[in-house]
Formats: sequence, C-alpha cells, structure tokens
Amino acid sequence: MRGATRMGEIAPFHVMELMARARALEAQGRDIIHMEVGEPDFPTPRPIIDTAQRFIAGGQVFYTHALGLPQLREAIADFYATRYGITVDPGRIVVTAGASGALMLGLGALISPGDEWLLSDPGYPCNRHFVRLLEGVPRSLDVDATTDFQPTVEKVGASWTAKTQGLLVASPSNPTGTLIDPALLARLWQAVHARGGALIVDEIYHGLTYGIDARTALEISDEIIIINSFSKYFGMTGWRLGWLVVPPHLVRDVEKLAQNLYIAPSTPAQHAALAAFAPETIAILESRRNEFQARRDLLLPGLKKLGFHIGSEPQGAFYIYANIGDLDKDSHALAEKLIEQTGVAATPGLDFGINAPERHMRFAYTVAAEKLAIGLERMERHFGA
Amino acid sequence: MRGATRMGEIAPFHVMELMARARALEAQGRDIIHMEVGEPDFPTPRPIIDTAQRFIAGGQVFYTHALGLPQLREAIADFYATRYGITVDPGRIVVTAGASGALMLGLGALISPGDEWLLSDPGYPCNRHFVRLLEGVPRSLDVDATTDFQPTVEKVGASWTAKTQGLLVASPSNPTGTLIDPALLARLWQAVHARGGALIVDEIYHGLTYGIDARTALEISDEIIIINSFSKYFGMTGWRLGWLVVPPHLVRDVEKLAQNLYIAPSTPAQHAALAAFAPETIAILESRRNEFQARRDLLLPGLKKLGFHIGSEPQGAFYIYANIGDLDKDSHALAEKLIEQTGVAATPGLDFGINAPERHMRFAYTVAAEKLAIGLERMERHFGA
Repeated sequence: MRGATRMGEIAPFHVMELMARARALEAQGRDIIHMEVGEPDFPTPRPIIDTAQRFIAGGQVFYTHALGLPQLREAIADFYATRYGITVDPGRIVVTAGASGALMLGLGALISPGDEWLLSDPGYPCNRHFVRLLEGVPRSLDVDATTDFQPTVEKVGASWTAKTQGLLVASPSNPTGTLIDPALLARLWQAVHARGGALIVDEIYHGLTYGIDARTALEISDEIIIINSFSKYFGMTGWRLGWLVVPPHLVRDVEKLAQNLYIAPSTPAQHAALAAFAPETIAILESRRNEFQARRDLLLPGLKKLGFHIGSEPQGAFYIYANIGDLDKDSHALAEKLIEQTGVAATPGLDFGINAPERHMRFAYTVAAEKLAIGLERMERHFGA
Repeated sequence: MRGATRMGEIAPFHVMELMARARALEAQGRDIIHMEVGEPDFPTPRPIIDTAQRFIAGGQVFYTHALGLPQLREAIADFYATRYGITVDPGRIVVTAGASGALMLGLGALISPGDEWLLSDPGYPCNRHFVRLLEGVPRSLDVDATTDFQPTVEKVGASWTAKTQGLLVASPSNPTGTLIDPALLARLWQAVHARGGALIVDEIYHGLTYGIDARTALEISDEIIIINSFSKYFGMTGWRLGWLVVPPHLVRDVEKLAQNLYIAPSTPAQHAALAAFAPETIAILESRRNEFQARRDLLLPGLKKLGFHIGSEPQGAFYIYANIGDLDKDSHALAEKLIEQTGVAATPGLDFGINAPERHMRFAYTVAAEKLAIGLERMERHFGA
C-alpha cells in the first residue's frame, strides 16, 4: 500500500515531542513551567458553560445547517456591528469546525493544483499544510522584526508570480504576537486585488490585544476572506468552533464543501457559543485580557534581560517570538537544555517555518504570572551560571 | 478571484433543496412525513448526556491529543473485544471529527494526485468528493440489487487499472441498507491486496442491522482501513464524532494530518462518548434497534405493495433504496410530486451517484412507525388515483 506523496512534506507539530518530554519529566516528579502551549489556562467562561448545559440537557443534539445555526450567524454579524461598527451580512458568515475548518473551506474553494500562496514566515504552521493538502504550493514570505513580522507591499510584489493565487496574513500573528497596521493592510489588499488575487486574513487572536484594539480587514473590503475562532479570546479551544467570512460569490462553493467535508459543525459548541457575545461573558473575557497583558508585561522585559532579542514588541495573542541572540547557536538545542536543566518548556522556531527557525523561540504566556516569574528566575540562574 | 477547478465537480446535497421545500410547506401549515432525512429522530441517550454534563460543568474544555483521548481509544478497543471478539491495538484507533474526519484523514494519507478509487455506486455521496478534493479520481463501480448493491471480485478486477489505488465499500450501505457477506469481503480484500491496493470499509451503520449481526472487516485483516461513527447506532449525530482504524504503518501520517487539519476532535463529544459503551447505554440502543427493525418491517412491504421494486432486502442502516418501476419515469419528478401532492418527502437517487439515479428513491425510516404508516396511506391514495 503506497501512501500519499504529500505526506513527505507535511510536518508534525514538533512541539508535541517537547510536550511529551515535559509530561515524562512531570511523571518523574519534576516541576515544569509550560511556556510551550498555545492554549490559555482559563476554563470556558461560565455563561457559555451554562448555556451549553441547558441545551444538552434536552438531548436534541442533531445536525445543524452545514453553514451553521442561523441565530449564531446572526449573533456573529451583530458582534461585528457592536465591536467594529461595521455591517456584515450573516449570509456571508460560515460557522466552522474551528479556525481549522475555516481554513479548509476557504482554501478548498480557491486552490487548484499548482496555485501558489504567499504565507508569512514565521507563521502558523498548519497554513502551509492546508495549501499542500489541496495540491497548492506554499511559498514562504520571509518577514522579520524590522517590519513587525508582517509582509510589505514591495515584498508581496516581488514574490508574486503568474502562479500566485493569494496571500495569507495573520493579525495578531502566531508566533510573533504582532499586528498589521490597517493602512498597510489596505495597501496589501490593493496590491493583491490589482493582481487578481485573494487575501485571507487570520483574525483568530482578535480581542487579545493590549493597549490597542485590532480592526477587522472587513473594514477594507468585503472581498477579503476572514478566518476567526471561538478558541482564543472566547476561551473555547476544546469545543472546536470558528467562523469564516467570505465574499457573496464564494458562499455557494463553501456551502457545497461544508456539506461534503463536515456535514455541520458541532451542535453543542454552536449552542454554547450563542452565549459568547453576552455582556456577562464579555466582562469575563475583558478581565482575562487584562491578565494576559499583565503576563506579557512581566515576560517581555524578563526575556530581554536574559539576553533574548525582541525587535518588535508583541501587541497581541499570547506569544513572544524571541531571537536567541548569543544565548545559544541553535534554538532546538536551547529548548532541550532549558527543559532538561531548568524545567522551562518553550517552543523552538522549527514549528513556524523555514525563515531562520534556529535563531528563534516562542514563549507563550498561557500560564499564571507567578509561574512565568519562576520560569524567568530559573532561566536567569541557568544563563548566569 | 478565480475559484478551485475542483468546485465544478463537487456537488451539493440535493436533498437539502427538498428539505428546504419541506420546511416551506410546513410553514404554510402542511403536514410533512419526513422520509428524506438520514438522521434518526432519537435524542442522544441519557447516560451519554449525563456524562457530557458532568464533564462540561467543570469548564476544563481543552484540546485533547490529536488522535483522541487515550481512555476513549481504549474504550473503542474494548468494544471491539466485547462486541466482535477481536483484539485491536488502541494505538491503531484514531478518534475523529465524525466519520467525515475519518474519511479525510484516511484518504488524505493515501491519495496522490491522479490516484483512482473504486467507489460503489449508489453510495454515500461524500466519498467521491473527498477523493476529488484530494485530487484523486473517483471511479463509479456500478452495483445493483442482483449483488445486494455490493461489488463483486470480477467487477473490481475488471475495473482495476494501473492508476487504481483502492476500493471503498460500505456495509451496511447508504443508501441501500445492504450488507456485504464476510466471505465476499475476504475475497475482495484478497483481490485488492494482490494488486497492492488499499481497502476502506465504512462500518458506520454497524449496530443497526436486523436479524443479523454485522462482522467487522478487521476480522479479515489488520491492513483493512475502517471508518466508524458515534452518529448512527450511538445516537450522537450533532456531536460530530467518529473513529478510524488504520494499519500500524499509517498511524504516524494520520497523526500528522490530524494535528494540522483538526488539532483535535471535539473534547465534550469525546468525554460524552466515554459513556457510549456502558451497559445502560447499550440497553437503550438495542431497544431503538428493535424499533428501527419494526419500522423497516412496516415500510418495506408497504413500498412493495405500492409498486416500488426492492430487489435486495435491506438488512441494516435505516434506508430502503427503491426502484420506482412503472410509478414514474424519473425519480426526481416523482419526489417533487410526492412532496407537493401528498406531503411525503423522500430522496431521489441523484444524491447517490450516476448509476441509474433517475430510477431510484431512498426512503429513510428515521421517523416513528405511525408516521411511516400515514406516509404509506397517502402514497397509496396518490398512486391509486
């Protein structure tokens, strides 16, 4: 039995090995400070839990429409109105099985074999694997701290070929936590649109920005495709629910794909998410946002003091992408030393692309500030020794 | 913005239009007998609901391992031991986002562009669209009532080419409700294996067989790939949970794909499913199975009496695939007449392939026997007039 040729190019999450090692050390009684995990430590907010409980109690957990519960699509449209002050037709909003489902449906409706996609590197590792799965060709667009790890119009122009179909950017970005300036995004859209291309903007870390509110790319054009999620700001990772906003002319193709590939998103998750935009939920989420900001404000100067170089201040998500400077030659080796010798787990750049991954590590502030402080102390002793 | 070439070949679920029409008629006050829906009317069993409630109450709804909760993978392995008397290594069992996720992961790890898959026709419509999504080539293997709507060794041999990668069969089958004889399946496996091919067996309707217990293809070989689901027998459609059993050498590739395409299956669904194999749940499910059998035993002779031809008795699932005989020239037209003139909704063959769909309709017995009886009476008046 021969396997798919694509599998040679589809990488595992390397962080999983690190997490397995962390668990093994914990099983031996070692205390591990987890800065490798891209998942917040907060439980699902109580109003969302209560709503889920009330729905599930009835046992009527049937399939929904492939594009999602109509009332949830309307609630998301209302959220765009209240949070961003813009009007979005609920008919363009597609509820998905996580942002993963949104990426699959959006890219699946666009990519033909050989189509190239420009992807910020470093970036979310799965993006290039979705493109590869669909027999498209992912092209790394190298970005660095000098441009807040976001692409420039010049770089996109220079990288665009006759085979390029689109550009995918994230704001805030995983692993860098940096935002894209709205004026720059508008110019990027012009550059892409002028070439007949598509632009996908990953907004899954919206809500988790500090000292600044992210603006949605939908303000720029209804032709831009938006990926969003209930996982991060809304605290619903394990529920697997996200959404996609597409131009009207793509809705029918996305619907056909959704029917065939998913049937429908999770029904309990969709009913639970009806409480995600309620004032009492938002109050909880904004309080958590303050906590994330406090964590960042502890970890960022702490890492700099240790000798990590952070050339562009992260303003969102819960990640710091740090250049290891003179601390080590190789981030993978450094990650191994840190977990083995100090019990601090952080993710080497390897998972985020091919643009100097050996020079970078991602630190997640998904654990409490007290734990981050312990982690910093341990690293200080390690590097000071 | 150009779309994916594949979209021209990916069909919507035509039954959705029929369901929309049914809803519109209901909104006008018409009473509709739903025999079009492939989803049972039973709620999720109480022990599963209770287990979900207890888990969700804590709010700790985080990502699980990409291959699923270890205790659920073990529970599924135990189920193979108790129900089928066979040993399956839990390490080969992958928990998925519905059988849809299982199809994506299994086929995604196998198909390279141009690889051909032989698919029983009529069959589950999404199968060919998964193959097409992955840039494989779906090949219809025409089957009919003379072979219980299952392929023969001769037909597979005659259809196999240098480009063929595998064969996908379902037992029980949607839309025909027919099983595949274990001895035939063993011969089919030999034929496929001798050609270096892969065999996928869809067992998602196991448990819903009447007067016979289905045997799993895992009895024949550990190299056969199995698709299964918590949706049908276990009554968990809206939870979106299924599983995949793969040979040991495919586990790593499936894991890489699962990490990248799904992150993990729904956490509430996985915890809920831990109660799916409990004796009190099985007692409820077996009682429902008796009810499904009673429904079939009402509908099958009823349809025959009306003039439908059913050449192979359906022994499982909750479908009857009926040849319309002299009742009409075209099943799509007949479906429209039935819903408009009698309020009986049933699915024309169109959704299930290209093998004489205009001659067939699928009747689902997913509603109570009393309703089926009313539907039969209405059709009797219609055809008798």
